[in-house]
Amino acid sequence: MIVVFKPDATPEQVEQILTKAAELGLKTNVSEGVERTIVGLIGPEDVLQVTPLAAFEGVEKVIPVLAPYRLVSREYQPEDSVVDINDHIRIGGSRLHVIAGPCSVEGEERLLEVAAKVKAAGATLLRGGAFKPRTSPYDFQGLGEEGLKILQKAGKEYQLATVSEVMDPRDVELMCGYVDVLQVGARNMQNFSLLKELGKVDKPVLLKRGISATIKEWLMSAEYILANGNFRVIFCERGIRTFETATRNTLDINAVSVVKQLSHLPVLVDPSHATGRWGLVAPAARASIAAGCDGLMIEVHQNPKAALSDGVQSLVPENFETLMRELQPLAHAVQREL
Amino acid sequence: MIVVFKPDATPEQVEQILTKAAELGLKTNVSEGVERTIVGLIGPEDVLQVTPLAAFEGVEKVIPVLAPYRLVSREYQPEDSVVDINDHIRIGGSRLHVIAGPCSVEGEERLLEVAAKVKAAGATLLRGGAFKPRTSPYDFQGLGEEGLKILQKAGKEYQLATVSEVMDPRDVELMCGYVDVLQVGARNMQNFSLLKELGKVDKPVLLKRGISATIKEWLMSAEYILANGNFRVIFCERGIRTFETATRNTLDINAVSVVKQLSHLPVLVDPSHATGRWGLVAPAARASIAAGCDGLMIEVHQNPKAALSDGVQSLVPENFETLMRELQPLAHAVQREL
Amino acid sequence: MIVVFKPDATPEQVEQILTKAAELGLKTNVSEGVERTIVGLIGPEDVLQVTPLAAFEGVEKVIPVLAPYRLVSREYQPEDSVVDINDHIRIGGSRLHVIAGPCSVEGEERLLEVAAKVKAAGATLLRGGAFKPRTSPYDFQGLGEEGLKILQKAGKEYQLATVSEVMDPRDVELMCGYVDVLQVGARNMQNFSLLKELGKVDKPVLLKRGISATIKEWLMSAEYILANGNFRVIFCERGIRTFETATRNTLDINAVSVVKQLSHLPVLVDPSHATGRWGLVAPAARASIAAGCDGLMIEVHQNPKAALSDGVQSLVPENFETLMRELQPLAHAVQREL
Amino acid sequence: MIVVFKPDATPEQVEQILTKAAELGLKTNVSEGVERTIVGLIGPEDVLQVTPLAAFEGVEKVIPVLAPYRLVSREYQPEDSVVDINDHIRIGGSRLHVIAGPCSVEGEERLLEVAAKVKAAGATLLRGGAFKPRTSPYDFQGLGEEGLKILQKAGKEYQLATVSEVMDPRDVELMCGYVDVLQVGARNMQNFSLLKELGKVDKPVLLKRGISATIKEWLMSAEYILANGNFRVIFCERGIRTFETATRNTLDINAVSVVKQLSHLPVLVDPSHATGRWGLVAPAARASIAAGCDGLMIEVHQNPKAALSDGVQSLVPENFETLMRELQPLAHAVQREL
Repeated sequence: MIVVFKPDATPEQVEQILTKAAELGLKTNVSEGVERTIVGLIGPEDVLQVTPLAAFEGVEKVIPVLAPYRLVSREYQPEDSVVDINDHIRIGGSRLHVIAGPCSVEGEERLLEVAAKVKAAGATLLRGGAFKPRTSPYDFQGLGEEGLKILQKAGKEYQLATVSEVMDPRDVELMCGYVDVLQVGARNMQNFSLLKELGKVDKPVLLKRGISATIKEWLMSAEYILANGNFRVIFCERGIRTFETATRNTLDINAVSVVKQLSHLPVLVDPSHATGRWGLVAPAARASIAAGCDGLMIEVHQNPKAALSDGVQSLVPENFETLMRELQPLAHAVQREL
Repeated sequence: MIVVFKPDATPEQVEQILTKAAELGLKTNVSEGVERTIVGLIGPEDVLQVTPLAAFEGVEKVIPVLAPYRLVSREYQPEDSVVDINDHIRIGGSRLHVIAGPCSVEGEERLLEVAAKVKAAGATLLRGGAFKPRTSPYDFQGLGEEGLKILQKAGKEYQLATVSEVMDPRDVELMCGYVDVLQVGARNMQNFSLLKELGKVDKPVLLKRGISATIKEWLMSAEYILANGNFRVIFCERGIRTFETATRNTLDINAVSVVKQLSHLPVLVDPSHATGRWGLVAPAARASIAAGCDGLMIEVHQNPKAALSDGVQSLVPENFETLMRELQPLAHAVQREL
Repeated sequence: MIVVFKPDATPEQVEQILTKAAELGLKTNVSEGVERTIVGLIGPEDVLQVTPLAAFEGVEKVIPVLAPYRLVSREYQPEDSVVDINDHIRIGGSRLHVIAGPCSVEGEERLLEVAAKVKAAGATLLRGGAFKPRTSPYDFQGLGEEGLKILQKAGKEYQLATVSEVMDPRDVELMCGYVDVLQVGARNMQNFSLLKELGKVDKPVLLKRGISATIKEWLMSAEYILANGNFRVIFCERGIRTFETATRNTLDINAVSVVKQLSHLPVLVDPSHATGRWGLVAPAARASIAAGCDGLMIEVHQNPKAALSDGVQSLVPENFETLMRELQPLAHAVQREL
Repeated sequence: MIVVFKPDATPEQVEQILTKAAELGLKTNVSEGVERTIVGLIGPEDVLQVTPLAAFEGVEKVIPVLAPYRLVSREYQPEDSVVDINDHIRIGGSRLHVIAGPCSVEGEERLLEVAAKVKAAGATLLRGGAFKPRTSPYDFQGLGEEGLKILQKAGKEYQLATVSEVMDPRDVELMCGYVDVLQVGARNMQNFSLLKELGKVDKPVLLKRGISATIKEWLMSAEYILANGNFRVIFCERGIRTFETATRNTLDINAVSVVKQLSHLPVLVDPSHATGRWGLVAPAARASIAAGCDGLMIEVHQNPKAALSDGVQSLVPENFETLMRELQPLAHAVQREL
């Protein structure tokens, strides 16, 4: 941590920081500049998290040097993590995986039909929401446990691993009984009570990026899960909120490579939410693979016009199949299989 | 709701929408323009929330006309809501109220001291976090129930109503036993499980705006609480995330008057989070009152240098007292008392 | 254009709009809803641009239906425009083109060296700034006309078309004497005096997206150039400003496909500015091609450590050559050549 | 400037930076941390602007310590600048000044009428655009020199100083012949050719903040004008672009006090553009004065329904007069006169 003093800071004010640092067991390095003094603090920065140095007199600003995440960082583990979903599916290796399915589980017959089709097209995981975070209290909120049962059945029938969103720490145990991967949605990325619960379970967690979360905050949310004991975390970029209204969100394609540099954990992309319009899903999916992601999460619905949620951004199974075919040569072009 | 067709939409595609509207019990109004057809749908728009018209062939876009919130709207209740906290404190009337206190409850002695001082300076409510949402799992997470007990004691001792943040739906009942106002923090503004629980309690809720929530989304989150039965909701603007890094957040001062136009519920401002630096709190507080807010929420700590959280943005009691004095003539200038 | 009235609008207020519309030669379509009246105005919306209907009493909001751009739109010209740079280079066809070179022209020897290398690697256009828009008045501002002469010489020597930024309407004529493509930088995207001048010249214009320009505003800036007579406009996405600070800008990869849907003009991507770090340029370049862009603009400098500007985001020639090789199979995977 | 090395940086890589620093005449301060080495560079940072240290091997990031602006800074001049407009009007002193008038000059009769009214209400400067930056080439572009003549006449008739926007460096001389204050619009805040010209004239410059400009960039744009010789610069906050669409822009009220802390130059606020809706202008104006600005710029039009531009955000003269009356007690409450 580097403490930059104001030009008119007094020697006593500098001394105050040096004393505090000594109390905390940190070494210091004083640099008297032309215009101002700068002090470097050497040692574990954690001890500084409870001492707001910027609140001391004479201090202009405090600049952290080290990243605040540890367990998720490349420095902690230089080689890529590969997250085992089951005996067949390992996310983060050379094989790309695609999670497909409807936004919400709407009924057994419908889900079985779409499961059959996404399986045939090459998906290996099936998505389907049972608890839905909806902006409006008057919108469809999901089928709850009934939805989880249907999802489990469809997954078994077509040998697809299952993914579903958990919104409430009280539902974590219930969900672990039905699904293979627990998804944290964008709105809950900083629901720390939920993250702590997910740190204690023996299931992989798909952690979506918050709507306006910085990459650093996103890594810190993963750190909550790892620090509580669960290392099977998969990131999922789903677009961020910007001033642009032509698309529902702005896909931050740079985030894929930035996270890959900073962390050892795998990264997926959700081009459905990242665009919000089905006609833009295919180019966003292609771009994501070219950028180096480890897989995709795509909304597929056999009749988007009747979907109870997110119909506008869902692909019909035929378009999904076409997309999966198009992605093959792209995956090969970046030395991956699909 | 208005459906705009593509220039090359066929009559059959228009017909498809008219048929669907008829099924839903809506009247339609067809307008054949120079370049394209437009259809207005007349009737309760709620029925359309499960039918994504934008997913129909030939449709270019769908434009909602009515706001999706009902109970929170000025149209539902034209006159201002005044939220009773207790027999003495009513938020939303001509009297402004100030919530003051430390970010976190750190110990009994410290809190009693600061409570005495903010009371003397004119605050009527005491804040203090017991469950803290922290970006890092390694930061101080709050004293939990112990903190609530201390807060309750300080409130009683100095006749200050108490406000504390609830993060987990499992803690709602516990908190109701100790505090007068339950606060929903910015990161939980769309934690719908939590909002539903808060709709069922007999306590006022202070609903902070999400870090990148639109005003519309903020109103919808309040709608969750009202729709579940609790009409005592108070909004709190606390700054939004923008590209500007000179301040921790950007205080959206326009939001105060926009919310006042759209909703009957009271609006506070938190200038501490909205600036992130204690030296900017006073002008932001003054601006908020001039803009027409119903009160303020300000972080005060007797020794910010030793604060376990948010020290940089906390006022010392002396500066808080000065600020309260400065705010008096401003309140009068906008026909309010403080 | 659709006029939505307030719930309490009077019949006289509605009549006032109908009268104004009749004066302007527009047909109207009145729709009496459950809660409010809506009036559609049918006819050329241009006449409404001088009449702010939202300022009329009783009007809640006015919703435009038609896009405000004409000449740049797909509706004006359904097939892709191919912009001829010279007899060999046509941007927007099946062949992708790469513009490469240093941020600024810094000297003849240096530029000739880098020109030789980017040519060998497969670039077909050479970039190099002579007039540099720098945030600080104390930063290097470019070599001016001397830089243009060097650029022209390097272009001739290696048969590379040349691209350079024009910042001042007074320089347009001068630049036309030296370079093949005139670039409008992000900061000047809404410098309308400059755009009008560029509408009158017989040179292609590379129009970068403004730092926080919406796609609609970007198209409107192109419309200025086309409306003044020059149809040879090439868009260049270079990242937008968001809250994320891990990268210099956020590459809006969705913008490539959105612009392709809305406009017939070609779209390039500049992954150097869109990331701001050389280590992120390659994945962003790959993603851009996969998303369907018509080419790339990449900063290359033989010694980034000594670059007078943008060294941090420049590739060394060896890395550029590697990237060009990697892009080949990706281009083929999306049915393009490079 | 502080250079942070990667954890695996070699001693040779550190040495390379030390050698470069020595060449540039800078002293260095090496700090060997637990995880990585940090080097502080002491001396004038200007010399580093042409040497991108972040491009050196082994360097993780480079953190600037000093602000890049000099002449505009509080450190350069601790006391407030007061900008003389003429013998009567001095902006930045205890007296607040209000610039009022229409967005565009639309004709002599209209302007004289509105000038009379804003003068009577207490405005001391008259605004009116003659060259208008419009998003669309098909919108009204202003009356040009004819507009300037009308503005000059109205100013003389009612003893109001005049303000008008300059968009093109070629128009600077012309405008100096007619108006008292030259305004730089938001879209031209980084039109460096224009800023350099304005540095050479003997007229005050009103520098609006760019639509997505950081405060630091805004100060740097002022630095261009001061560095070229003109110290009479007045800042004008006019709202920034964010994700929020309920208002045209987001008034960054914090910017007033941040700029006051960092710079000695005066700061106005334009609540008309910062809200975009006339019904929100009054609270935004009140907030701005409470926050400590030196004056306001407000759009006033006698018939907004017929305004050729910005009708929706213009006050009618009666509302402007009411607002001016309301602002009096607020100005007194912050120890200013109006």
